[in-house]
Amino acid sequence: MPDEKKKYTTIHYHSYLQLDKITGAQKLRSAELEDQPAHEEMLFIIIHQAYELWFKQIIHELNSVVVMFKDDWVDERNLGTAVGRLDRVSEILRLLIQQIHVLETMTPLDFLDFRNYLFPASGFQSLQFRIIELILGLKEDNRMTYSGHSYKVVFTEEQKEQLGNIEEGGSLLELIESWLERTPFLELKNFKFLEEYQKAVHRMLDKEKQAIMDSAYLTDKEKEMRSKMLGGTDTYFKAVLDEDAHNKMRAEGKISLSYKATIAALLINLYREQPILNMPYNLLMSLKSIDELMTTWRYRHAQMVMRMIGNKIGTGGSSGHGYLAATAEKHKVFKDLNHIASLLIPRSELPELPDELKKELGFYFSQK
Amino acid sequence: MPDEKKKYTTIHYHSYLQLDKITGAQKLRSAELEDQPAHEEMLFIIIHQAYELWFKQIIHELNSVVVMFKDDWVDERNLGTAVGRLDRVSEILRLLIQQIHVLETMTPLDFLDFRNYLFPASGFQSLQFRIIELILGLKEDNRMTYSGHSYKVVFTEEQKEQLGNIEEGGSLLELIESWLERTPFLELKNFKFLEEYQKAVHRMLDKEKQAIMDSAYLTDKEKEMRSKMLGGTDTYFKAVLDEDAHNKMRAEGKISLSYKATIAALLINLYREQPILNMPYNLLMSLKSIDELMTTWRYRHAQMVMRMIGNKIGTGGSSGHGYLAATAEKHKVFKDLNHIASLLIPRSELPELPDELKKELGFYFSQK
Amino acid sequence: MPDEKKKYTTIHYHSYLQLDKITGAQKLRSAELEDQPAHEEMLFIIIHQAYELWFKQIIHELNSVVVMFKDDWVDERNLGTAVGRLDRVSEILRLLIQQIHVLETMTPLDFLDFRNYLFPASGFQSLQFRIIELILGLKEDNRMTYSGHSYKVVFTEEQKEQLGNIEEGGSLLELIESWLERTPFLELKNFKFLEEYQKAVHRMLDKEKQAIMDSAYLTDKEKEMRSKMLGGTDTYFKAVLDEDAHNKMRAEGKISLSYKATIAALLINLYREQPILNMPYNLLMSLKSIDELMTTWRYRHAQMVMRMIGNKIGTGGSSGHGYLAATAEKHKVFKDLNHIASLLIPRSELPELPDELKKELGFYFSQK
Amino acid sequence: MPDEKKKYTTIHYHSYLQLDKITGAQKLRSAELEDQPAHEEMLFIIIHQAYELWFKQIIHELNSVVVMFKDDWVDERNLGTAVGRLDRVSEILRLLIQQIHVLETMTPLDFLDFRNYLFPASGFQSLQFRIIELILGLKEDNRMTYSGHSYKVVFTEEQKEQLGNIEEGGSLLELIESWLERTPFLELKNFKFLEEYQKAVHRMLDKEKQAIMDSAYLTDKEKEMRSKMLGGTDTYFKAVLDEDAHNKMRAEGKISLSYKATIAALLINLYREQPILNMPYNLLMSLKSIDELMTTWRYRHAQMVMRMIGNKIGTGGSSGHGYLAATAEKHKVFKDLNHIASLLIPRSELPELPDELKKELGFYFSQK
Repeated sequence: MPDEKKKYTTIHYHSYLQLDKITGAQKLRSAELEDQPAHEEMLFIIIHQAYELWFKQIIHELNSVVVMFKDDWVDERNLGTAVGRLDRVSEILRLLIQQIHVLETMTPLDFLDFRNYLFPASGFQSLQFRIIELILGLKEDNRMTYSGHSYKVVFTEEQKEQLGNIEEGGSLLELIESWLERTPFLELKNFKFLEEYQKAVHRMLDKEKQAIMDSAYLTDKEKEMRSKMLGGTDTYFKAVLDEDAHNKMRAEGKISLSYKATIAALLINLYREQPILNMPYNLLMSLKSIDELMTTWRYRHAQMVMRMIGNKIGTGGSSGHGYLAATAEKHKVFKDLNHIASLLIPRSELPELPDELKKELGFYFSQK
Repeated sequence: MPDEKKKYTTIHYHSYLQLDKITGAQKLRSAELEDQPAHEEMLFIIIHQAYELWFKQIIHELNSVVVMFKDDWVDERNLGTAVGRLDRVSEILRLLIQQIHVLETMTPLDFLDFRNYLFPASGFQSLQFRIIELILGLKEDNRMTYSGHSYKVVFTEEQKEQLGNIEEGGSLLELIESWLERTPFLELKNFKFLEEYQKAVHRMLDKEKQAIMDSAYLTDKEKEMRSKMLGGTDTYFKAVLDEDAHNKMRAEGKISLSYKATIAALLINLYREQPILNMPYNLLMSLKSIDELMTTWRYRHAQMVMRMIGNKIGTGGSSGHGYLAATAEKHKVFKDLNHIASLLIPRSELPELPDELKKELGFYFSQK
Repeated sequence: MPDEKKKYTTIHYHSYLQLDKITGAQKLRSAELEDQPAHEEMLFIIIHQAYELWFKQIIHELNSVVVMFKDDWVDERNLGTAVGRLDRVSEILRLLIQQIHVLETMTPLDFLDFRNYLFPASGFQSLQFRIIELILGLKEDNRMTYSGHSYKVVFTEEQKEQLGNIEEGGSLLELIESWLERTPFLELKNFKFLEEYQKAVHRMLDKEKQAIMDSAYLTDKEKEMRSKMLGGTDTYFKAVLDEDAHNKMRAEGKISLSYKATIAALLINLYREQPILNMPYNLLMSLKSIDELMTTWRYRHAQMVMRMIGNKIGTGGSSGHGYLAATAEKHKVFKDLNHIASLLIPRSELPELPDELKKELGFYFSQK
Repeated sequence: MPDEKKKYTTIHYHSYLQLDKITGAQKLRSAELEDQPAHEEMLFIIIHQAYELWFKQIIHELNSVVVMFKDDWVDERNLGTAVGRLDRVSEILRLLIQQIHVLETMTPLDFLDFRNYLFPASGFQSLQFRIIELILGLKEDNRMTYSGHSYKVVFTEEQKEQLGNIEEGGSLLELIESWLERTPFLELKNFKFLEEYQKAVHRMLDKEKQAIMDSAYLTDKEKEMRSKMLGGTDTYFKAVLDEDAHNKMRAEGKISLSYKATIAALLINLYREQPILNMPYNLLMSLKSIDELMTTWRYRHAQMVMRMIGNKIGTGGSSGHGYLAATAEKHKVFKDLNHIASLLIPRSELPELPDELKKELGFYFSQK
């Protein structure tokens, strides 16, 4: 229980930030095991500690967003805050990518001065990094295996239990999917979005086919190629909009989001200028951004490992560069949101929303 | 012939920079082909023009370095300048990577407003980008094909001729390889680097095997695993140092640099603190840096294409994201320099250079 | 008039981007005036041309936002687009700041190789940069003079006319001020924002005074100091909220925004989570961000000039570093928005909005 | 004494990095003093802890460079290492500047949720930051006062003692000055650098005066202005090269480096392509870079404080923005190195070094 009088106690920078702990946590293995500590080992320790501080911050932000989405209904006044916190996570990830530049000031020869003393410690054992992946929604089935084993094999029993609890808790991916599925605008005031959208797609494709054929400027060969490309696009729209085809790909693990959630995401992307869809659109953009930055970080990290140890085995006995580069693509969580881009049609072809519906999607004040 | 008196003419910013040309070169297709120009098309044009300006600068720097290395002997006083210019290329590449953030402010829906008018223009048709790849040393055999065709198929006859001349000119990769092969320090004053190095590797591996076996702290299982890893490393050193094995891999296209050049690069890496090897070391680092940044740029560009068009075909009819992501790895030019990292041994194990040799590698002034 | 059939003509990268103009616009003065061109002059030309390309883009974005705000009423569906374009301007400014790193690869000694040939060309003669300042809203009265002269003295008659037209057109600062003044929420449904806010400020200050006095943890000296600081803050709130005091400072040129606009900006900052105030809040943040980045760019540019020429006169005969560093602070356009930060009170002290008012500020759909 | 057998113990990531300490050091004041912790306070704590981790790393690097320069003679093989470590400090400072972006995701209204609980803690109490300033060489006389008091007033007795010891230890500025003064090349083999340099300056200025007068392209008014500028430059060279004038400015606190050190720095800048001067040149560049980045960090920090609290008093009772902005310029340590830029003359005017001297400045191996 807060104590009003306590609010006016004083606090000093050094104790507030517990700097005795923070700056007293660097113990070089090379100092223990050699006559002369390896100068470069300090950087190795500090940079990983900085990463872990920021992982804690990321978890703090992601958890707070998960809480906002746990219920059946998300307060609109929270959506802006959720977007702000996810954007902060993106800003932190940009910092963590830049941080790799600092580690690149260590040369491979320098690393060899203390590398042997680190075995078998390795970034694979970062509990917080795995927690971040779990909160985002990376499923074990979608992971690269760790020399054939589950990623959990490197953790203690206590840590495995912690990971297990988070897995059950409900990830951002699952909660966002539920939230998307709950969107009320797919059928409103006699406007059936999906039907109208499909009609618009057909109108657009027919118009383009005709214009290609009528063109006075293309050669026959070019006309043939362009029609073929259009055909390809046509097939793509059909296959993806077909609920059965969608569910089939979902069963095969190629798609994560449910059909309903996908159509909702499409609506939000197409009509994002409608006031009530504006913040939902920003939310989807923020999730995509986090995914891309995690991917970039994994890739740059893989590059740095390649530079540092070439083709040798990594400190934890892993395959080093190859593994890390593969996770860059495979461990994407929100990749379905990128595929929405393939389903967009130009604004000029979008079905116009009836006035009655626009009113529903606008601000109360403005409707008078 | 310069005119002394002309040196004191005046010049104005606008005409010096030919801004009529620069700022008068933006002609929107959507303005020609629609009633209303697409606002976003300006950004698309400007950003690609900015890329091409910087490509011209990169070519200017790389060409000047090629000139320095064309002879049988590189002036030492030029080495520092060469490194400075290559580092400038790296700094420009960092800028070009950041530039992708600006294009990411365009949403996929916005891009659809004018995308159809661009066909079949595409980044594949950037002549300057191909020139950069050629000057660095990317061989046609090592390229991803362009839907089965040579990359040259998108250029005019005149442009193909220009590319052909540059291919014959001699790339940075070839010139650096020759320069490395010419290094005089591999056998100097009775010190045979390769022999001494191999002895040091064996000494090191034997010592480690023994320490693992004697360890009071490892379990038998851990001892077995660590010996096995050591064995793997052992084999690696042998395979790579064997000239026949090296040439075999080179014939298979897995390695670019000759055996002699590789050993020279290893020497430079190991003894870079010797004054005369300092700038050669920095040169190799600069080349690695350019390679990594080109790779990162390709990867981020692929990510952005994925975000912008999902799985649709790219503007030039190419496979878009997939192709670009693959070139990130495949089109590396100086990857052999990364493999040197696998051949390094700790400083504490390095053969000590005899004083007579250190004198040769130092400054004249300091030897007195 | 668009021609349907023309839409399917083809276009090639090189001609679409008019690369003959772009890459054919580099003419080195040192090549004209010396036997040997100065290698470094190419970078100098290219980097300034890149700046001018991006200045054109910034003007394109700012102009489009000015157009949105020119009327008596801004369409809500445009607000999000306006914010997106202003954020793009910020992203471009970040790129332009990073671009300075590239110019820093040129050493002072290298610059001396061609610097004398540039006289009197100088960045002061960048028309586009002045246009940007004018569109944002920098008034001539608030400018540093150019060795005692108006900044227009370096332009041709035609350019001066262009600048004059833009000055009359209406800047972003003026249009945003009008838009803020038009906000309807200052008095709505019996809720008088300013009255309620002032009551809340007094409540808050009284509560804090009492807590300081009652504190069991502060020494008398600390209590005295904290009360004094509170007193200072108290006076500050009063002075700024007083309409007469505000107008007096405005007449003295210390404040730009009108009293009404300032109060509106305060409301928007305090109640930004209300849906209809969310995008207006983001708009103010975007303007602040542009101001800060322009300031940072000016400062970093000044630093670079200092590094490049020390205390010598700049290429245009100006005082170089000193002038540039001073404009960093003096040429801020939206600094009033920063002062709003001094007027904020903690959320816990904010007057709660009556339900009837919250309904007005929310989405139509959600009110049912 | 190291234990050979201990080298093969194992270590785990979590304990190696002491993550219990690192991630267990975040204790929110708002959690103690309120019912509900302020979400944003976690970021505030984490970001400052990350800063302090990196400050520790910077101190580690700077101290190791101080050690290299403490003797009467610096081993050439160390110079490259020293430059590498100073460049690493620059890379870390770039990261710390970018880190400010993360704190900018906190809005002023959010900060108010917990700001009152921080009093009087403030960044002024960062011991490590003061240590960095001392090691670089910031003298107390050159500091901005802290509301009229010494900066040490905010520290404990123990901390003040620690600062005192470092002040006596010898800063980088002092050690670099001594090292510069020891340079043997100012008079070597009958080549007196300063004399030759002064002759070259006069030759250059006379030649330029004549060319201006003879110019067929300048108006009389332009000739007058250009001669006047040349006169200004002329006076500048004289004043700075005059030992008495230099010492007078040094006594007034306007210059830090001794006359002899300044001339040595000039020599190094002018003849940096000579092999033995190459690394000394890079060293001076690295110091300038650190100075500029510290300045940029201070400036961006000041901007952020302005954004966060407007004109209110900072958390420690200081004047906030104004103080911080002033230290950006005033607390520069190596500004004299920037002034060297004013003393450079074009390469084409440099006195050619006699062959005998070039031999001394080159590599031993190459002289044969």
